[in-house]
Amino acid sequence: MTAPFTFELIAQDEQTGARAGILHTPHGRIETPVFMPVGTQATVKTMDQGDLVEAQAQIILGNAYHLYLRPGHELIDRAGGLHAFMNWQRPILTDSGGFQVFSLGDLNTISEEGVRFQSHLDGSYHLFSPESVMEIEHGLGADIIMAFDECTPYPCERDYAQKSMEMTLRWAERCRIRHQALSEERSHRPPQALFGIVQGSVYPDLRQRCAGALVDMDFPGYAIGGLAVGEPREEMIDVIRSTTPDLPAHKPRYLMGVGLPHDLVEAVGHGVDMFDCVVPTRNARNGTAFTRSGRLRLKNAQHAEDNAPIEEGCACKTCTNYSRAYLRHLFQTGEFLGLHLATFHNIFFFQQFMREARQAIIEGHFAQWQRDFLAGYRDR
Amino acid sequence: MTAPFTFELIAQDEQTGARAGILHTPHGRIETPVFMPVGTQATVKTMDQGDLVEAQAQIILGNAYHLYLRPGHELIDRAGGLHAFMNWQRPILTDSGGFQVFSLGDLNTISEEGVRFQSHLDGSYHLFSPESVMEIEHGLGADIIMAFDECTPYPCERDYAQKSMEMTLRWAERCRIRHQALSEERSHRPPQALFGIVQGSVYPDLRQRCAGALVDMDFPGYAIGGLAVGEPREEMIDVIRSTTPDLPAHKPRYLMGVGLPHDLVEAVGHGVDMFDCVVPTRNARNGTAFTRSGRLRLKNAQHAEDNAPIEEGCACKTCTNYSRAYLRHLFQTGEFLGLHLATFHNIFFFQQFMREARQAIIEGHFAQWQRDFLAGYRDR
Repeated sequence: MTAPFTFELIAQDEQTGARAGILHTPHGRIETPVFMPVGTQATVKTMDQGDLVEAQAQIILGNAYHLYLRPGHELIDRAGGLHAFMNWQRPILTDSGGFQVFSLGDLNTISEEGVRFQSHLDGSYHLFSPESVMEIEHGLGADIIMAFDECTPYPCERDYAQKSMEMTLRWAERCRIRHQALSEERSHRPPQALFGIVQGSVYPDLRQRCAGALVDMDFPGYAIGGLAVGEPREEMIDVIRSTTPDLPAHKPRYLMGVGLPHDLVEAVGHGVDMFDCVVPTRNARNGTAFTRSGRLRLKNAQHAEDNAPIEEGCACKTCTNYSRAYLRHLFQTGEFLGLHLATFHNIFFFQQFMREARQAIIEGHFAQWQRDFLAGYRDR
Repeated sequence: MTAPFTFELIAQDEQTGARAGILHTPHGRIETPVFMPVGTQATVKTMDQGDLVEAQAQIILGNAYHLYLRPGHELIDRAGGLHAFMNWQRPILTDSGGFQVFSLGDLNTISEEGVRFQSHLDGSYHLFSPESVMEIEHGLGADIIMAFDECTPYPCERDYAQKSMEMTLRWAERCRIRHQALSEERSHRPPQALFGIVQGSVYPDLRQRCAGALVDMDFPGYAIGGLAVGEPREEMIDVIRSTTPDLPAHKPRYLMGVGLPHDLVEAVGHGVDMFDCVVPTRNARNGTAFTRSGRLRLKNAQHAEDNAPIEEGCACKTCTNYSRAYLRHLFQTGEFLGLHLATFHNIFFFQQFMREARQAIIEGHFAQWQRDFLAGYRDR
């Protein structure tokens, strides 16, 4: 099952836990560490698929919850899968909807069977179970699919976190079984890799037990979930630092829903290989661009006559063609193009610093690169 | 003054009034007949300037009224003009705001001096006069600028139409004088061509008198204004047909604010060289795509599983990459990308059939091409 998803570790940093690798998929290779732009509804907002290639995105993420509701995974399956439907030929990862049924679904009720929820669109009733989510994710046909889990909120009582983690483990096993059966039934489709998700809130021993049990199930990759849900940054970093050693070195590690540039650079140092977050795209639409020194508010009056690009030296389409003054005007007037140009820059920026991190790992000076990056980058 | 704006007539159809030409400008040549996409606020909505080149736009239009209000023509002037501000290196035409002060401005009052109006944005008071509009259009720095005119509504009493047309002529002369002075003062900037605008509502003799008087002022190009304001299509076509013979053959003729593909193809046959309209871009944002057989409503349920492009054989980015099913999904979910992809197709479509019309004129079979186009194109 994991054969098409070979993960090659090509370099490991000596001073930190950072690694550089190549994850092979049926839709091509992914050079890690990698940041995956979020394409919730079969589109990374404002970006044409050609733009994504130009912005150097290697893999994008789709949301099972949204695509199940609209246009429906069965329609996408009949169109030949998500790659064909949206005309994106590079790798795709789909999440399981575990996060969305809690954050977006109304009146959800959770049981051993799964989660009953009402659609945020029309209030209609739905059930997500480990089995139904595997069917949805097979219909979508992403290269990497995520197990259905319960994403606990923060703060979370230890007792609830433990019971939830244990159910997430039972769900992971049900996902594994259904995924295996579907892979055999649907052998005409490219193979898909199912990743397990480590939960356990901020309790190190729960995280450790969860990781150990998932490793026993032998998934081709492992995610750290349930973070960036409101906990202090230190607690988040602690969980990452204490969890990655419990995951096998020869499998990719994916930190879900994180996040900000300095968090990514920190987590790479703790051995994380894959990331996704709406941070670059959502911030762009709010008029916030990322630079090596921090965030830039494009709407600020100080940019009204600034002919400089967002960032000097940035090779992206936005910075090589447009001034801050023009971008500010586009945001002031509510023009679509502002959203697109800021999104393009932010995605390119995330790809760029992740490529640099990777290069530094390969060249053996990641720790210095990381210090320099974090010294230069100031976030609020 | 008109030297950099040589208009070469390279072919004239023998059966119709259609002409093919080349209009030379300081920012390159424009092959006519030409359709100009509208970039009201220094952006053709949803289109990056690279997209416009890819969609084969030769020249775009900017709106003096909007740019005067935001970000201000003085700011754009300091940035080096509209070309530099928005990074568009091909020709630009700006209108005079004459249409917008009536259609968008609140509580406008008209006098010999000009038009006092309240901004549609914040209710602030402003005066547009022939002289102030020339200053605005020089600050913007478009290759072609339009005289300040009164655009009469439809229907319009003959008496009002006559008085208005006579004032438009006096304003044209004031524009000409101020434009000449500004051109001399601002000789460090590329030269700009001022076009006169023929008014006179639907009264042929008023149109004729207006055209004759403008021709006496010797503008480098002439526009037909005050159409597509609610009059029946037959009346619009009658005005075009009766007006173009009164305009000199060796100067470009520009029909303002028209319009639909069949109207353009008809007007080309009456000797019009240039067009602008929000039809392709605004319709795109409403989910309407243009094809050789008419309009396509992308939101229609019948497209939900249609893997065909908007139009088979269309070479645009949208049609070569994306299905109707995907486009429908983007509109159903309110995604930005739908607006962009539909806009790209519509602009490309307008450029494409105008290029074909031009080629048919050059090859001497425009009348047949026109009949075929109009027979195949069905509009509601």
